[in-house]
Parts: sequence; structure tokens; C-alpha cells
Amino acid sequence: MISDKKTIQEHLSKAEILRRLFEIWNPQIRTESVPLREAYGRILAEDQRAQFDLPVVRASSMDGIAVRSADFRDGIPDTSSWKIGREFVRADTGDDFDDAYDSVIRIEDVRIGRDGSLTLCLPEETVFEPGMNVRPAGSMLKKGVLLARAGRTVTAADLAALESGGITSVPVIRKPRVGFIPTGDELISAGNIPQRGQNIDCNSILAEFMIREMGGEPVCYPIIRDKREKLKEIVERALAECDIILINGGSSKGEADFNAEIILGRGTAVSHWVKAAPGRPMGVAVADGKPLINLSGPTAAAFYGLEWCVRPVIARALGSALCPRRSVSAVMTEDLSAPGVIEFLCMINVSRREDGVLLATPAHNRMNGNPPLAADAMLITELGKTLYRKGETAEILLLRPLGELE
Amino acid sequence: MISDKKTIQEHLSKAEILRRLFEIWNPQIRTESVPLREAYGRILAEDQRAQFDLPVVRASSMDGIAVRSADFRDGIPDTSSWKIGREFVRADTGDDFDDAYDSVIRIEDVRIGRDGSLTLCLPEETVFEPGMNVRPAGSMLKKGVLLARAGRTVTAADLAALESGGITSVPVIRKPRVGFIPTGDELISAGNIPQRGQNIDCNSILAEFMIREMGGEPVCYPIIRDKREKLKEIVERALAECDIILINGGSSKGEADFNAEIILGRGTAVSHWVKAAPGRPMGVAVADGKPLINLSGPTAAAFYGLEWCVRPVIARALGSALCPRRSVSAVMTEDLSAPGVIEFLCMINVSRREDGVLLATPAHNRMNGNPPLAADAMLITELGKTLYRKGETAEILLLRPLGELE
Repeated sequence: MISDKKTIQEHLSKAEILRRLFEIWNPQIRTESVPLREAYGRILAEDQRAQFDLPVVRASSMDGIAVRSADFRDGIPDTSSWKIGREFVRADTGDDFDDAYDSVIRIEDVRIGRDGSLTLCLPEETVFEPGMNVRPAGSMLKKGVLLARAGRTVTAADLAALESGGITSVPVIRKPRVGFIPTGDELISAGNIPQRGQNIDCNSILAEFMIREMGGEPVCYPIIRDKREKLKEIVERALAECDIILINGGSSKGEADFNAEIILGRGTAVSHWVKAAPGRPMGVAVADGKPLINLSGPTAAAFYGLEWCVRPVIARALGSALCPRRSVSAVMTEDLSAPGVIEFLCMINVSRREDGVLLATPAHNRMNGNPPLAADAMLITELGKTLYRKGETAEILLLRPLGELE
Repeated sequence: MISDKKTIQEHLSKAEILRRLFEIWNPQIRTESVPLREAYGRILAEDQRAQFDLPVVRASSMDGIAVRSADFRDGIPDTSSWKIGREFVRADTGDDFDDAYDSVIRIEDVRIGRDGSLTLCLPEETVFEPGMNVRPAGSMLKKGVLLARAGRTVTAADLAALESGGITSVPVIRKPRVGFIPTGDELISAGNIPQRGQNIDCNSILAEFMIREMGGEPVCYPIIRDKREKLKEIVERALAECDIILINGGSSKGEADFNAEIILGRGTAVSHWVKAAPGRPMGVAVADGKPLINLSGPTAAAFYGLEWCVRPVIARALGSALCPRRSVSAVMTEDLSAPGVIEFLCMINVSRREDGVLLATPAHNRMNGNPPLAADAMLITELGKTLYRKGETAEILLLRPLGELE
């Protein structure tokens, strides 16, 4: 019932666990075709190229009138008898015009009378060439030109570029289905008032939205009570339904902590325990070719495990570069002691000094040692480092856009 | 038909246009209550506080057994006759336990026999106090404690914090409805093959997704042909239905460019033309207390106008801090000449030098001078600056996460 006790020094580091996991888990990247607007925020699976030229034939490059360059061969002509629709037509930016005309004069250099007559106000030295101020076919967009690159997350501007080139559906990387199984006799669903001994399951909503942010498709299972058979059952179901499986809670040495045992016994064990806290009793295994991860129960522990382990796991399942939280330098406003032997997650509140320098204040929850959620940033303490001194500059990872933090 | 010609020097700068607009347009910030999960990504309108204490009564702070501290008053007792359920019970992290017990010993320091007997492996000098290793009521969460702050965008961690504190719905800032009206005889909807003289309306999808990213609710209208009456009609409809109205195209000096005239004549004109390109012929007015913005037709111009003008306008309608694109320093890989008299949008491709330094390469579209969309970043040239030299460090604004750019 009680896991082998190891000293913290014997735990693996976060990096080592990921290295070992990625050594034995090499997911196949699968793609699917989706209508263009559903591709927003997805990772493009293949380069996309323009299907046609734009303009199709030609287009005026400015607001003006289209004329025949031949009429200007011997200099600026007498236009006193010219009429709109005969010797010239209107041709504004982007407009095509009749083949009878081949050049454009900008509107600022002409005066069109109410009767359709024309007065030119061109400088004497104006030289006319066929095609002047006219964009040829394909000058805005050339058939075959690269519109969007494989491996990139599709942005609003990408959607516009793809649409302009005639693309209406695109192949994207399939989102990995990430199962989340909350476990614990003490848990009740949100919306209920907790009674003595009860706690609200707020980790499901945390995981659901974080998984979505990371590019996965969350599959949230109901709360599972601490019964070995029920847990085995739901793990098998999740293994059948998902690509990555997260079991939350029951990871440590408690009476009901057989989740670690179940996941480590179900496939190839990668590790139990990690040199990181909160969430030190984390278990990682691979079963049926799928990562099976036992996150610790406390919300801050689940959050940290999602950040350091599930984020790179989902990125790997997407075959994409890891997009970590934004890192900024900030000056510590007080001493922060660190464990040294583990990478500790310290929540940080951020403010700005008058000179613009960012300030980092640890958001302690002194009553229970768990960092409160919903802070501005996080500091992950370095292995071997036991003190961040007041006034020292540290790298912190932003949990909110910088613009929101005064 | 032709707007007054002004020299570029007489145009207003972007900042001046926004200043003048914000002087006469002071939107009322409205709120609405939404179920918690719909609050993700929305701006919280009021501070939210915990509705109850957690734990409700108490909870073990570690995996272990609960005992009576009185039994330890005179030192470590003889436990040879102790039985589980009588002198002690199991109490794991987060567990409450019967009132008969008051302290917890960690599981590593005890051995529980198969028959429910107990062996203690405590250091001799262990001192017992009531409540040892027990978290009191409210130690994880105190009723009334701040869970999430007004004015902040709700994150996944905020959702978890709010749920854990018993919050099931929250007041958020109402999204401004932002109408987008594409105009132009040459436009056809995406999915069609353009014929001679036609162009695909890809600005609607661009605006729709950018408006959503900026926190607005896009309302996309069908393509409106260049007919004065049709345009007036749709502007009136949009003014009735939306909080901010964008008319795209018809902003310049072409024959069909009466959009500027219509919007500037409909309310209080703020400006026509701006010291910025592409999109110089932009018009801004306020009608019926709502911003009425005429963005230029070319997609890059519409994009730039959305970035510099619509983004701060939506932020103001949300009463929120502006969250601009992330700015990074990058070294220019080639000379880039700039107009000096206007702030020019230059699209940039980003790469990384071996030493990690970011490199900025202008993504020219030499054929028509319009910057291609879907680049990695943008450089907005400074007023007064006419050259960015190769090797110079410039500030660029990222359009993609840095992790995606090699």
C-alpha cells in the first residue's frame, strides 16, 4: 500500500522525466482536413499555396482614369474633345478596365467635367509607357505562392491570406484527446456547498481550459471515488478513448493512493516522484503507447504538473514547438528561500516601479504552504539555489498579459 | 466626389486621431452576468471573494494517522494494544477525521499491521501538540478572501480559484458589438473563383477573428456594392445594431469612394487621412455616440487599421488596459528605407542567429508595395526616421509566438 520511500535526492528532475518519457513515447502525428474558419488556432499540416493569380488580368494601382498610352506617344495630347467612356474611363485602385485602355493617370492630375470632358493637369515632362500605374495579372498574388507554412498556428491574418488564395479547407494536426480523471472520496462537484470533510473539484475546470489552451481536446471524466476497481475501470476506458490520460489525486502514500500503483503497473513506468513541488508524488508511465500521468491532488500541484509535464507532452503529440509562458526579468521585493533540492513553484504578484522595472513579490499563502492560484506570474526555483535575495533579478513566467499588470 | 486634397504633412498622426476620438467618445462600460465557464477570457467586472471556509472543519496536512494528542502527553506511549478505529484512524492529506482525534502522525513514521495494530517509529524527542499536522478550518481558503480581481481577464487558474470558493457565475464586461461592412463592386465571397476584375473579400474573416481576439463580438455584414443609398442604409442598420462600426473600402478618392464622405457627414468627424500606411485614406467619426471607422480596402491596410485604431477602441469599450502585440528587439538583416512622414507598416520575417539574437528581415512584396500578410512580425516605422540600417536593432511586434519562429 505504501510506495517505496525514496529520498528526494533520488527523485528524477522534471527534465529527466520528460527525457525518459520522450525516449519511449513517440506519438504518430495525425492530420485531418477542416473548413478554413475551423483552422483558426490549429497547426497547419501542409504548406498552402495560392490557387490563382490576383488580379486575374490587371488592376489599376491608384484612383484615376484609364487611357490609351498611344494617345500620349507624342507628348500630352489636346483633350478638349475627349469624352468619358470614349477616350478614357474611370479606373480606381483595384479596378480592371476595358482592353481599349492600357495606362492609368491618377485622379489628382485630371479634372473631369460634369459633361464627361477631361482636363489634364500633368507636368510637361510626363512620360507615358503602356501599363503605367497598372498592376499586371498575379502582381498581388501569384498562383503557387506560399500563403501559409506547415507547422505554424493559423492566425487571423493567415485565414485572410488563405482565403484570398482560394483555399477553403486545410489539413491541420489532429488535436490529441486528453482525458482528465478527478479522483477522491472527499470531492464534490462545483456548485455544491462543501460539508465537513468535503472539497470542491476545481481541478477539472482548470485542466479542461489549460488543455484547450495547450492545443489538446479535453475529455473530462466524472469524479471517481477511491475504489481500486473503479479506478482501474476508468483508466481502461480513458486509454481506449484518449491519446493522453491524466489521473488526478491518489498519487502519494495515502491509504487510497493506489492511482500511482495502478498507472505504474499498467504499462512501462517512467517515474514516480519528481524533484518538483507542489506535486512531488507525481507518476508517469506509458501504456498502450499513451502517456498515463498521475498528477497530485492539490490544485496548485495539478497546475504545476500541467505546466511542466502536460504542456510539453501535448506539444509533442502535436509535433509542434513548445510555446512556453512568456518569461520576463523582475526584481525581487523580498527574500525568498528555496528548497534547493527541488524546483519549487512560487506564485508571484507583479507590479511596476516608477522607472518601469518589474517587481516580483512572492504570493505566499503562509497558512498551508500551497501557493495560491490566480497570481500574476510564477517563479520556478532553480535546483541548487536556496535563496532569492531581495533586490535580485529573477526570471518569472507571466500568467497574465503584461498590459493587465500595473 | 473628390475629397479635399491635403498634403501628408497635414494628416493627423495615429496617436492624435485616437486622442481626438477619445476626447469625444467616452463609452459606458456595461456588465452582464455569465455562468462561470463562459467567463473564460472575459474581463471580470467585480472582485470575487470566497463564499466559505476550506477545509470546512479541518484536514490532515499529510498522509498519515490521526491520534489523540492526550495519549502523547507523557511521551511516546506503548501502542502494543492499539487498534485502528479505536486509538487511531487513517487520515491522509486533505482528509477530515472523527472529533475523537486531534493530531496527525505522518505515514512514514508508523507501521500498521495487517491486524490493525500500530508500531510507532517516532524519534524519542518528538513533542506532541493538539492540532499537529492538521490544517484548521479556513486554512486553505478563508471565507471572504479575494479569489479574482476586477479588471483582469479570467484565466483557467482563475476559473479554478473561483470554483473552489463557491462562485458559479460572475459579472463580466459586456463585449462591444463590432460591425464590419465590406464594400466594393469588385468583391466576391470566399470560395468562389475570381473572374476578371474580381477580388475575394478576405477582409471579413480577418476582421471577424481579429475583433474576437481583441475582446469584441464581431457582427459581419454581407458585401455591399458601391451604391450610395445601399451604403447609407447599411450604416444606419449597423449603427442600430452595434457599438462600433467599421466600413471597409471606399475610403480614398475613387469614383465610388463615398464611404468616407458618408461616415464623416453622419456624425462628428474626427479625421480623414492618417500619417500611416498602408491605409492612409482612413476616416474616423463618431455618430450616435459610436465610433464609425472607414478602413481602407487593401487587406494589409485593413489589418493595420484594425491593429492601430480598432484595438485601442475595443479596449476602451471594454474599459480595459490595452494589451498590445509583444514587442521584441531584433537586428535588421538589410537596409529598410522608411517614408519618415508617415508610420509605415513593414511586415517582418524573424529568424534566430546562432548566438540567439533575433533577426528581422523585411518581407517585401516588391511587385506592388503592399506588405504580404501572414508574416512573423511587423515593424512600424517611426515618424521622422527614413532609414533602418542593416545591423541596427529595431523593435518589432510579434504576430506569432516566439516559440514557433526558429
